[in-house]
Amino acid sequence: MTDSSAGKRSAAGAAVLRSEITSALRDALVEELAATGYGRLSIEAVARRAGVAKTAIYRRWPSKLEMVLEVVTAIAGQRLELPDTGSLRGDLELAMRGMASALRHPLASQIIPDLLAEAARNPDIGATLQQTLTETGRTVGGQVVERAIGRGELPPDTHADLAADLVIGPLYWRLAVLRKPCGKAEIRGLAQAAAAAIAAGAH
Amino acid sequence: MTDSSAGKRSAAGAAVLRSEITSALRDALVEELAATGYGRLSIEAVARRAGVAKTAIYRRWPSKLEMVLEVVTAIAGQRLELPDTGSLRGDLELAMRGMASALRHPLASQIIPDLLAEAARNPDIGATLQQTLTETGRTVGGQVVERAIGRGELPPDTHADLAADLVIGPLYWRLAVLRKPCGKAEIRGLAQAAAAAIAAGAH
Repeated sequence: MTDSSAGKRSAAGAAVLRSEITSALRDALVEELAATGYGRLSIEAVARRAGVAKTAIYRRWPSKLEMVLEVVTAIAGQRLELPDTGSLRGDLELAMRGMASALRHPLASQIIPDLLAEAARNPDIGATLQQTLTETGRTVGGQVVERAIGRGELPPDTHADLAADLVIGPLYWRLAVLRKPCGKAEIRGLAQAAAAAIAAGAH
Repeated sequence: MTDSSAGKRSAAGAAVLRSEITSALRDALVEELAATGYGRLSIEAVARRAGVAKTAIYRRWPSKLEMVLEVVTAIAGQRLELPDTGSLRGDLELAMRGMASALRHPLASQIIPDLLAEAARNPDIGATLQQTLTETGRTVGGQVVERAIGRGELPPDTHADLAADLVIGPLYWRLAVLRKPCGKAEIRGLAQAAAAAIAAGAH
């Protein structure tokens, strides 16, 4: 595959970047990250896995760091489906099941700890990762908290950020740090605990 | 420094290992881990930092992995002071302040993410780390929960493990993952939330 096979140019004269190559490169990056980790990741290996030349990467991202940050931000920022179940506990249980399944994914369970380790030494990775995770938490927390306030289940001054920390924290600790099994019954218990924690502490 | 400088032998004929060398090696390992990470850590660099020969390490630990696991387990297993404050919330607040100060330590904030990243690829590191963290949590959680049951603040069937997850999870998420500031007021709020979460969900 080459970006120039179609020979197209945009109005500004820049080569048109083929979206199927961009997509193949993103997939290849995620697979390489899971296999080797950020520190040992090479741009050559990503290009080889995607079946393209290294220049196809440098046409899209200025560096390995930029590429990783963009791809990881896109994955972490994916929207969770959050239908209204009629109660705070029900909404939390559903959101936590979605997060648990994302955290259990073999790619996430290898890439996230890896990037956090890198973040401890690389402030750019740290800042981007933390901003993305905070925003994701705020989106989920905000939606669930707003509905619960509307139902009269939570006081109007409940903070979405703190609520998100109380929901994601125990789940992340159990699944990603302790790597303990966390089935439906456990998630139901954690959702019940999180609902009480938010009501007690997040305002 | 050499182990044999005193020329002593134990009754069994093995060379006596000087405890000040063991201690210098442990300190050197922690410093090297923080500086370079597990993956790039070299036994030579640890020995050089401690001012001893590489053989001093191999006399004590069969491999880099064994050395790291022993030292990290000892650090993670250090007892928190947990005086009885007279209430579950007070006990949690004190325990969380101790954990927060441990998590904020520059060495912990670099070494823990690093070992978790390594744990995702190395089952030996993973199992040891998870066992140590679970036991530490159980010790802290058990003591605080037992007192609260005694005071009638929690039902007798409250689980120490789940309680520990509800306390450590949000703190770890905020401090070690999001790296958000977490002062006295935030810790007080988290302790209040954790007390409610334990009462609602940990039985």
